[in-house]
Amino acid sequence: MSSLRITGGTVLCFDEERTILPGGEVGISDGRIDYVGPCRDGAAGEVIDATGQAVMPGLINAHTHVAMTLMRSYADDMSLHAWLEQRIWPVERHLLPSDVYWGTLLGCVEMIRAGVTTFNDMYWHAREATQAGLDSGLRTCPSGVLIGIVPDKQAMFERAVEFADECIARAHPRLHVRFGPHAPYTVPDDFMAQIIEAAGSRGVPIHTHLAETEKEVADCLAQHGERVMEHMQRIGLFDVAVNAAHCVHLSPAEIAILAERGVGVVTNHSSNLKLGAGVAPIPELLAAGVTIGLGTDGTASNNNLDVLEEVRLVALLHKGLRRDATVISAYEALEMATAGGARAMGFDDLGRLKPGYRADVICLDLSAPHLCPGHNVISDLAYAAQSSDVVTTIVQGEVVMRDRQVLSVDQAEVVAKAREAALGLVGRAG
Amino acid sequence: MSSLRITGGTVLCFDEERTILPGGEVGISDGRIDYVGPCRDGAAGEVIDATGQAVMPGLINAHTHVAMTLMRSYADDMSLHAWLEQRIWPVERHLLPSDVYWGTLLGCVEMIRAGVTTFNDMYWHAREATQAGLDSGLRTCPSGVLIGIVPDKQAMFERAVEFADECIARAHPRLHVRFGPHAPYTVPDDFMAQIIEAAGSRGVPIHTHLAETEKEVADCLAQHGERVMEHMQRIGLFDVAVNAAHCVHLSPAEIAILAERGVGVVTNHSSNLKLGAGVAPIPELLAAGVTIGLGTDGTASNNNLDVLEEVRLVALLHKGLRRDATVISAYEALEMATAGGARAMGFDDLGRLKPGYRADVICLDLSAPHLCPGHNVISDLAYAAQSSDVVTTIVQGEVVMRDRQVLSVDQAEVVAKAREAALGLVGRAG
Repeated sequence: MSSLRITGGTVLCFDEERTILPGGEVGISDGRIDYVGPCRDGAAGEVIDATGQAVMPGLINAHTHVAMTLMRSYADDMSLHAWLEQRIWPVERHLLPSDVYWGTLLGCVEMIRAGVTTFNDMYWHAREATQAGLDSGLRTCPSGVLIGIVPDKQAMFERAVEFADECIARAHPRLHVRFGPHAPYTVPDDFMAQIIEAAGSRGVPIHTHLAETEKEVADCLAQHGERVMEHMQRIGLFDVAVNAAHCVHLSPAEIAILAERGVGVVTNHSSNLKLGAGVAPIPELLAAGVTIGLGTDGTASNNNLDVLEEVRLVALLHKGLRRDATVISAYEALEMATAGGARAMGFDDLGRLKPGYRADVICLDLSAPHLCPGHNVISDLAYAAQSSDVVTTIVQGEVVMRDRQVLSVDQAEVVAKAREAALGLVGRAG
Repeated sequence: MSSLRITGGTVLCFDEERTILPGGEVGISDGRIDYVGPCRDGAAGEVIDATGQAVMPGLINAHTHVAMTLMRSYADDMSLHAWLEQRIWPVERHLLPSDVYWGTLLGCVEMIRAGVTTFNDMYWHAREATQAGLDSGLRTCPSGVLIGIVPDKQAMFERAVEFADECIARAHPRLHVRFGPHAPYTVPDDFMAQIIEAAGSRGVPIHTHLAETEKEVADCLAQHGERVMEHMQRIGLFDVAVNAAHCVHLSPAEIAILAERGVGVVTNHSSNLKLGAGVAPIPELLAAGVTIGLGTDGTASNNNLDVLEEVRLVALLHKGLRRDATVISAYEALEMATAGGARAMGFDDLGRLKPGYRADVICLDLSAPHLCPGHNVISDLAYAAQSSDVVTTIVQGEVVMRDRQVLSVDQAEVVAKAREAALGLVGRAG
């Protein structure tokens, strides 16, 4: 028997059959979906009336650094290296654990409002980031940052292992830990090998940045005589489950490696455009069979956590660049934000509306003028909707937003505390 | 003395000095701005409290076909020619004047909600489209469509001239008529010459599509032995004021022509991407001194009328394609949607907050989580805001939306009537 029933909406399952049920119902019990089908009139359970709404899997932000909300719009229209070295890193040196807590919570509220139910985070002070994610009600996939070019790298590694073991022991249904080696150019091979071993022995995926810029590829070629994916394959990274963010600069041989080794690729088009990195070859990756998820990256390079904007962008961008309007359909783009993102992150029970799957569900109001007349709900969601059309957000069966009111935390308090933290941080950084 | 005062907001003037006034005031009387400066405590006049909001010129949608809202999400992920010939034209043949009225009104409500105050429209049944625009309270710049490859072209031309003269005689402060020859490939040279003469003798600008696809350029070269802008210059199009939509495929010589002849270029990035047309060379056009406005195009190829999305796209896209994060700043992108769009359309008293200018003003709420902490309001608006952040829309001094409530028309009625019209239209088209 379902304890929560979402009734009357247009149910978009994102299952293998691409099922769409007009006026359908999604039933939930014990944090899982237990029914998808026609409305069951008179059945027991709390009801959320989704008439006039789209009901779909929660969106998955498969790569982000949430607490960077504190640096949103602090440094823009700069190239990646100047941006990092002159603006971001000098501020990050002054980050307090409490800053990360409030910055992450701010981002979680933003994501709840935008229909994002899962976030794949990589940031400093992972313990506080995790607490914020869990407090917000979101599905939280934390990885601290591991960098191998600093003197205390070994202590950093041990803390990461301890944190991962803590998370595993906690067995929280919304907590899914990862290891987060930053990138090949900040993690030497021997340090990466240690991380691969720690991840593999625990069955924990690795979340990392790969092949973001041309410079990274050129440096890898100069240092190792091979391209990034070739090098990563040789040192064994792909022997464990990997969520690889960016993957902008790839040869055909590297695309084949990603496909063969089952690497989940997470594209961050807004961020890659904004920092001048380029455009990931998504049509080629899809053609090779690679699973693609969408990420917003951090808000210092986006500047929001709006996954629906990334859906629109991935569906539009490649059509224009290839001069082929049939490349990446509206459906495929939405799938990357749901079922695709979940698979790219290694989940086999997330991102679809299907009995047995985790009950992460959102409802979007379809009555706004910009969604009228409603000829095709898939096209409307991919090309015309905005994240403010989301009215209800449910994670692991718990309603965290209803009628656009965030229920899990006090939104006004979070905004005030985060603003205070951001101004304090920037002030300390001078 | 101002009859309407917008007080306490962060006032973004988009004037030559790029003035930003924190906690400023904009005063309005007789449809014009009469004051921009610090708050005048205790002054007379109705007050709109914009504390915690950005106050800026209304956004300008400098190229659209508004009544195509009726075909929103009716045909997607198709190439331009298949889309037009198999899906759009067969439906348009069945358009009734009342369809255009309700479809246009629907689009106007959408634009009011998104902070758009001026729209440059080109569509069939211009009389009904114009009535809808004026009824909605928006600044309405109609042009019917003129096509010279049909038997009744001369009657069509005469109706367009009659309509233009009517609009001119009406002297409505929110009505600014144009002539709308569709494109060089549908308007033979002799017919274009007639239109140029009619426009020039009345001082009415021409609104047209130029160089949208590679095919158009190739066909022009084959037929005339010169590229589109070269040919248009030779037949005298640029002897009158022109708003040229698209301009995607340009040689350096053509960019020089557009600059020298003062042609206002309107870029429609979402539409050009979605239909696989390509990406207009905006950085080169800006470098040459061409004035750029932003357009959404029709909602059958976008699929919304959201100018703020076009701001974000023009600011992001070229950075990624040039691999240079300093190309097109947040400010420049917002300027294209305001002062730039106005100038591209031939206005010299629109698109800035400046005494004497037309009082088209919008207010955006800055308190949402996705705009926190607020380090830089320009970056926040270009990269993080969404059109649903607009709370107040004022056109020619009249408040058409307040606290997100559209005041000029009954939104629910418009949505219902437009949906009915859309379903009827598609039904008739079979």
